[in-house]
Amino acid sequence: MSGNTLGTLFTVTNFGESHGPAIGCVIDGCPPGMALSEADIQPDLDRRRPGTSRHVTQRNEADEVQILSGVYEGRTTGTPIALLIRNTDQRSKDYGEIARQFRPGHADYTYWMKYGIRDPRGGGRSSARLTAPMVAAGAVAKKWLGEQYGTRFRGCMTQIGEMPIAFESWDHVPDNPFFAPVADVSALEAYMDALRKSGDSCGARLRVTAQNVPVGLGEPLFDKLDADIAYVMMGINAVKGVEIGAGFASVAQRGSTHGDSMTPAGFASNNAGGVLGGISTGQDLEVGIAIKPTSSIITPRQSIDVAGNPVEVVTKGRHDPCVGIRATPIAEAMLALVVMDHALRHRAQCGDKAALARAASPESSFL
Amino acid sequence: MSGNTLGTLFTVTNFGESHGPAIGCVIDGCPPGMALSEADIQPDLDRRRPGTSRHVTQRNEADEVQILSGVYEGRTTGTPIALLIRNTDQRSKDYGEIARQFRPGHADYTYWMKYGIRDPRGGGRSSARLTAPMVAAGAVAKKWLGEQYGTRFRGCMTQIGEMPIAFESWDHVPDNPFFAPVADVSALEAYMDALRKSGDSCGARLRVTAQNVPVGLGEPLFDKLDADIAYVMMGINAVKGVEIGAGFASVAQRGSTHGDSMTPAGFASNNAGGVLGGISTGQDLEVGIAIKPTSSIITPRQSIDVAGNPVEVVTKGRHDPCVGIRATPIAEAMLALVVMDHALRHRAQCGDKAALARAASPESSFL
Amino acid sequence: MSGNTLGTLFTVTNFGESHGPAIGCVIDGCPPGMALSEADIQPDLDRRRPGTSRHVTQRNEADEVQILSGVYEGRTTGTPIALLIRNTDQRSKDYGEIARQFRPGHADYTYWMKYGIRDPRGGGRSSARLTAPMVAAGAVAKKWLGEQYGTRFRGCMTQIGEMPIAFESWDHVPDNPFFAPVADVSALEAYMDALRKSGDSCGARLRVTAQNVPVGLGEPLFDKLDADIAYVMMGINAVKGVEIGAGFASVAQRGSTHGDSMTPAGFASNNAGGVLGGISTGQDLEVGIAIKPTSSIITPRQSIDVAGNPVEVVTKGRHDPCVGIRATPIAEAMLALVVMDHALRHRAQCGDKAALARAASPESSFL
Amino acid sequence: MSGNTLGTLFTVTNFGESHGPAIGCVIDGCPPGMALSEADIQPDLDRRRPGTSRHVTQRNEADEVQILSGVYEGRTTGTPIALLIRNTDQRSKDYGEIARQFRPGHADYTYWMKYGIRDPRGGGRSSARLTAPMVAAGAVAKKWLGEQYGTRFRGCMTQIGEMPIAFESWDHVPDNPFFAPVADVSALEAYMDALRKSGDSCGARLRVTAQNVPVGLGEPLFDKLDADIAYVMMGINAVKGVEIGAGFASVAQRGSTHGDSMTPAGFASNNAGGVLGGISTGQDLEVGIAIKPTSSIITPRQSIDVAGNPVEVVTKGRHDPCVGIRATPIAEAMLALVVMDHALRHRAQCGDKAALARAASPESSFL
Repeated sequence: MSGNTLGTLFTVTNFGESHGPAIGCVIDGCPPGMALSEADIQPDLDRRRPGTSRHVTQRNEADEVQILSGVYEGRTTGTPIALLIRNTDQRSKDYGEIARQFRPGHADYTYWMKYGIRDPRGGGRSSARLTAPMVAAGAVAKKWLGEQYGTRFRGCMTQIGEMPIAFESWDHVPDNPFFAPVADVSALEAYMDALRKSGDSCGARLRVTAQNVPVGLGEPLFDKLDADIAYVMMGINAVKGVEIGAGFASVAQRGSTHGDSMTPAGFASNNAGGVLGGISTGQDLEVGIAIKPTSSIITPRQSIDVAGNPVEVVTKGRHDPCVGIRATPIAEAMLALVVMDHALRHRAQCGDKAALARAASPESSFL
Repeated sequence: MSGNTLGTLFTVTNFGESHGPAIGCVIDGCPPGMALSEADIQPDLDRRRPGTSRHVTQRNEADEVQILSGVYEGRTTGTPIALLIRNTDQRSKDYGEIARQFRPGHADYTYWMKYGIRDPRGGGRSSARLTAPMVAAGAVAKKWLGEQYGTRFRGCMTQIGEMPIAFESWDHVPDNPFFAPVADVSALEAYMDALRKSGDSCGARLRVTAQNVPVGLGEPLFDKLDADIAYVMMGINAVKGVEIGAGFASVAQRGSTHGDSMTPAGFASNNAGGVLGGISTGQDLEVGIAIKPTSSIITPRQSIDVAGNPVEVVTKGRHDPCVGIRATPIAEAMLALVVMDHALRHRAQCGDKAALARAASPESSFL
Repeated sequence: MSGNTLGTLFTVTNFGESHGPAIGCVIDGCPPGMALSEADIQPDLDRRRPGTSRHVTQRNEADEVQILSGVYEGRTTGTPIALLIRNTDQRSKDYGEIARQFRPGHADYTYWMKYGIRDPRGGGRSSARLTAPMVAAGAVAKKWLGEQYGTRFRGCMTQIGEMPIAFESWDHVPDNPFFAPVADVSALEAYMDALRKSGDSCGARLRVTAQNVPVGLGEPLFDKLDADIAYVMMGINAVKGVEIGAGFASVAQRGSTHGDSMTPAGFASNNAGGVLGGISTGQDLEVGIAIKPTSSIITPRQSIDVAGNPVEVVTKGRHDPCVGIRATPIAEAMLALVVMDHALRHRAQCGDKAALARAASPESSFL
Repeated sequence: MSGNTLGTLFTVTNFGESHGPAIGCVIDGCPPGMALSEADIQPDLDRRRPGTSRHVTQRNEADEVQILSGVYEGRTTGTPIALLIRNTDQRSKDYGEIARQFRPGHADYTYWMKYGIRDPRGGGRSSARLTAPMVAAGAVAKKWLGEQYGTRFRGCMTQIGEMPIAFESWDHVPDNPFFAPVADVSALEAYMDALRKSGDSCGARLRVTAQNVPVGLGEPLFDKLDADIAYVMMGINAVKGVEIGAGFASVAQRGSTHGDSMTPAGFASNNAGGVLGGISTGQDLEVGIAIKPTSSIITPRQSIDVAGNPVEVVTKGRHDPCVGIRATPIAEAMLALVVMDHALRHRAQCGDKAALARAASPESSFL
C-alpha cells in the first residue's frame, strides 16, 4: 500500500532506483499457459530506450530484461513473473552536486520532506527510468490480450511544445524518433534542434488508443475503466492532464452531439472514447495526455537547499529536452495494464461463458 | 474489488440504486475521538441536493443522512461509520419504458452487456444519485482534515457550455446555484433558460482546490497524489477530462517557465498544482475537470433496443440540463477523500512526529 | 484496511455495534443473475439467533434481514448487496455499570487502549452479535456455490467443555440446540444445566466441512485456501485454535501414513483435509476449531478500571454459558465466504473453461 | 491478488521457484531512515539454511541475500526494498522423473489441476525454499520493531513426532539444530537417526512468541491480530494447525479460569496469548503450530500420473526427514511480519502520539 504495486488481479510491483544495481518488477496474476520469453518483452523496451536519437537523453542503457521466475519450458505457470533489468550506465558522479539542493519541477523537495532522506543519484526512485519495468510488464499484458481478443495498443504524438502534429497515419509512427503519425518530421527535428540549443525544454501531447477491447470491462462506481486510465496516465512522470474521448472539448458540446448514437451496425461516433458509465463499449479506447516540459534544464533556476538557503540550480547531465518523446510506449503499456487487469476482473465476477454469450447477442441475458 | 470501495486506509464502500429503498456508504478507518453528528454531514448534502433551483432536476429528495454506527456519545470510535440515506421520491413509473432500450450517452448498454441484467429505474447503479453518499463521506474527511491541518476544500465553475466564467472571488460561490465565482450570474441564468427551452444540454468545467495540505502526501510510483486525484475525478459521473496545475497548457510551456522556482519564503508559482513527483508540496492543490453534457435530453436520439432493433429514444422525466452545475460539492468531496486517505497513509509509513519535525524545518532529517 | 472488510473479490464490509440502531453488511462482487431474496438468507440467521433454547442467551432479537440494494426483480445485478438488520432488544441499561471497568477475557481493555474510546453497550463492536451479518453474507455465498458446484457446508459440535461428542450422523444436527451429531443430547443438556447453575462457562470444539469443492481453489504462497480458512476461523469471536485435516494429530503421524495415497478412483484418505500446497484437492474440506469459554460470567473476577484501580467484576445480563453452541452456523458461513472468494479468484486467473476441461480429465492441459 | 503478496502496509511480494535462477522478494512500506544492510538479514537466513546438520536436507545453498533497492548510504529510503537470493545448488536432474507423477502429500496434483502446467523441479513454486525470502523480510521487520519497541521474537520446538520436549530455557535453543529449549538433545538425535534409517518422516510442534508487543495492535472484526497470525502460520508449508494462548486446551477450561484477571500490576495470567478481541494486550504473543511429517520419503507410495494411471512413487533426493526442524526461524519471521504490518496500521488510524499517551496511562483518552 506504499504505492509501488499497480493493479488488483494482474498486479505489477515495481522496484529500483535510477542508479542502483538494478530495476525491475514482479508480475502477479498472469494466466498460466501463455508462451513467453524475453524476446516478447525486449522490443517494447527498445522502443522506450534512451540514446536512440539526438533528440533524447544520451544515457546509454541496454535495458536488457531477464525473466527470473514464473515461466517453465517457455510457458507462464501462473506464478509470479519477476523481471530484472540491470543498470549499466550510471555515472553517479554527475549527480553528487545536487544532493543538498532542490531542483525546481523535480521531486527532490517532496521526497525530502516526506521521507527525510532521498537517493539523489539520477532522481533515485522518482526517475522516469522506473517506467522501463512497466513497459516490460505492459508487453506481457499486450501479448495476452492480443492472443485472447486481438486487442491492439497504439500511441502517437499529437503536439510538441506549441506545434500541433496532424494525424496522417499510424504507419508513420515507427519511422521517426518522435512517434509522430506524419511522413515528414523535418519540422519537428528543426524545432527540437533549436530548443536544445536554447538550453530549455518543452512539453508534448500524446494520443493512446486500444482497438478490439471487449465490451463490459470496468467496474461501476470507483474502478471505472476511464478512472483507472486517468490514474495510470496521470501517474506517468510529467503528465499533467488526461482526457477520454471528446475530453475537454465536451464542455462546449451539446448533449445532442456528444451522446453517441447507436444503430444495429454499432455506434455512430465515439465521443465517449470507448467508455460509458465507466464500462467499455467495445469501441476504441481514446485517451489524450498532456506532458509537461522537462524539469532538468541547463538554464539557471532559483531554488533553495536543504537548509533553506537560496541557491541557483543548473542541471547538467544527459537529459531529454522533451520527455514526451519517449513517453508513447510508456503510455501504451500503462493502458494495456489497465485493460488486462479489468479483463481478469470481469471474468472473475461474470465468467467467461456468460460474457462470450452476450457478446454474440445483446439479448442473451439471464432474464 | 468490484469497484464499490474507495480508498486504502480511509475507505468508503458505497451501495444502493437510484430507486431502491436506500443508498449509503460505510466509512472504515476514521480516526477515533472526533466529534461527529449528522449535523456535520447534512450541509454538504444540501449543497448537492436536487430541486433547489430551476436550473437543476426537480426531483425532490430530502437526502437526509442517518449515522447507523461508529459514533458513541457524539464521538467516532474508530469502527465503521455506516451512513444511510433513504430514497423518497422515486416515481419509478417514469422509467418503465426504457428498460429495453439503450439511451445514447448512458451506461444502459454497457451494464447490460457486462452483467446481462440491469436496474433501469432512474439509471439504477449508474445514476449520479450515488454521489450523495460520497459527499457525505467527504464531509467526514473534511472535518478531520480541517481540525488536524486546517485543510480547506473549495470548488467553483469556470465554464458552462462555451461560456467561460471569470474568477472574481470565492465569496460569490455560495450565493448562486451555479457555484460560479462571480457576483452577477444573470448571463448564466439566461444561458441556462435558453438551453432548457431548446431541449438540449451542455457541459461544464470546474476548478477544485485544497488549501493547507500537509507536505509529503502521496506515494512515489503508483498511488501518486495527482494520480489518485485523476482517478476520483474521472470517476465522477460525466467527467471526461482532468488536469492538475497548468494541466494541458503545460504542453506549450517552456521548462524554464513551468518549473516552479523556490525561495526561502516558499514557491514562486504553482504550475505544479501542488504536486511534484506525485507528492504534495504544501501548496494549494489545483484541479480542473471537464464535464460532458447531460445525456438525458428530450431531443430524439437514434439507438437500439436489447434485441438490436433500431429505436428512437426521447428521455423525459426530471433531469439536470447541465450536470456540471451540481458537481462542485461532489468534486470537493472526492478531493477531500483522496487527501484524507493519503494523510493516513503518510503517518503509517513516516509517523506523526517525523512529519511534524520536518514540517518545522526542511533540514531536520534522519541524516 | 481497518479490518472491517473480508475477502478480495467477494467482499463483505461489516458495520454496526451490538446496541446501535442497526448492524449489517455490504456484499460486493456477487455474480449477476442469481435469484435472491430475504427468504434465502433468513433461515441461516434463524439458526444463529439467540433466545431459541434455555442453553443460550435469552436476548430476544428477531434478526430480520432486509436487502437494501443489488437485487432487481428478484435477481442479483452484480452491484453491491447491502443487508440491514435492525437491533430491537438492546436494554442498554444492563451495561451502564461496566463502562469504566475492563471485564476479564473481553476486549474492553484492548479497545480502550487502541482507540481511547469504546462503546460499552453490549460489547459494542466486539460483540459476537456482529457475526449475524456474516451469517447472512455466507448464505448468499452458499447459494451461489450450491447452484454452481453443488457445494454443501455443514458443521457440528464435537466436544463441549471436557466432554467429547461422538459423531453419529449429520442428520441429528438440526434436531438439537447444540448442533450435536448425536440422537440423544440428554447428557449435554444435563451438563449445561449444571454449568449454568454454577455461574461459570465452558468451551467447545466444532467441526466444519464443505463437500463438492472444486479442485484448484487457493493461491500458492500467501492466500492459500487453508491459510484463509485459518484466518476466518481464528477471527470468529472466542476461537483460540484451528486445524485442517489431521491437524495437531499430524505431529505424531509418520509421512507414510499422513500423505494421502492416490488411486485412479481418487484419494485413499483425507489427512490433508482437502488442501495440498494451499490448493483444494476436490476432497471434503475438514476444519476443526477450538472455542474458549464465555468470558461473561456471574462468578466475581478481579480486574481494574480505566483509572487503573482494582475492581471486582460480576457480569450480569443475558449471556451464553457456552458461546460455542451458537457458533456452528457462523463457522459454516465463514467457510463458505472463503470458498466463494477463491472460486471467483480462480476463474479470474484460470478462466471457466480451462478449469472445467481439466476437471473432466487430469491430462487436459496446455502442454 | 494471486496470493504472492503478504501484508497491507508493510507488504512483501515473493517470487521465484526452487530451481529457477533466483528467488527473492520486494518489501514495500518500510519506514524510512532505518540503518539496513545485508548483514542485518543474513543471520536469520543462515539459521534457516539447509545442509547445516545431518538431521536436515543436504542441499547446499549459500542463501546469500543481496539488497537491490530501497537503501541509500546504509539507510532505508521508504521506497521498495528488493531482496535477491540466487539459487546455486539445483541438481534438476533429480526431479525429471516426477514431472508426470503426483507425489502423495505434495502440491503436484493441485498445481496441475489449477494451472494446467507446473514446474516440477524441486517442487517449483510450492517448495519450502520460498520461505527464505520471508525470513529475509522478517529480519527487516524484526529490526524495526526491535528499535522502536524492543519487540523480540523467539521460537522453539515443543514436540517432535510423538516425543514432547519440555521447556527448560530459551538459552539452549541456539545450541542445537532442533531449536529445542533443552540442554541435552541426545534423545532427539537418536530419534531422528532412527527415523532417517527407517526411510520415513515425522511431524513437529513449535512455539513462537513475541515480547514487548505494543498494546492496541490488531483490527476489530476481520484483520484481528490472532486471525492474521493464524493466516501466516497456516500458510507456512506443512503447517496443519495453529493455536493462540491456551488454544485447544481452552475447550476444557472454565471461564473463571480462562479469562485472565487484571491487577494494577498487569495481567495475572496469559491464557489469551496476548490477544483479546483481536487486539494485542501488551502481553507476550504465544502461538503454537503443528507441522505435518515430510511428504518426500523413500518409502514407496501409491499414486497416479497425469494420465490417471496408477504408479508407485519413491521420492529420492535430499529431503528433510522432519521439515519442522528448520521451521522455527520461518515462524518467527512470519510473526514479525504480522506485528510489523499491524504496527503501521495502528499508527495510520490512531497516530503515534495518542498511542504513546495511552500507553503511559490507561485513563488518558479522548473522553
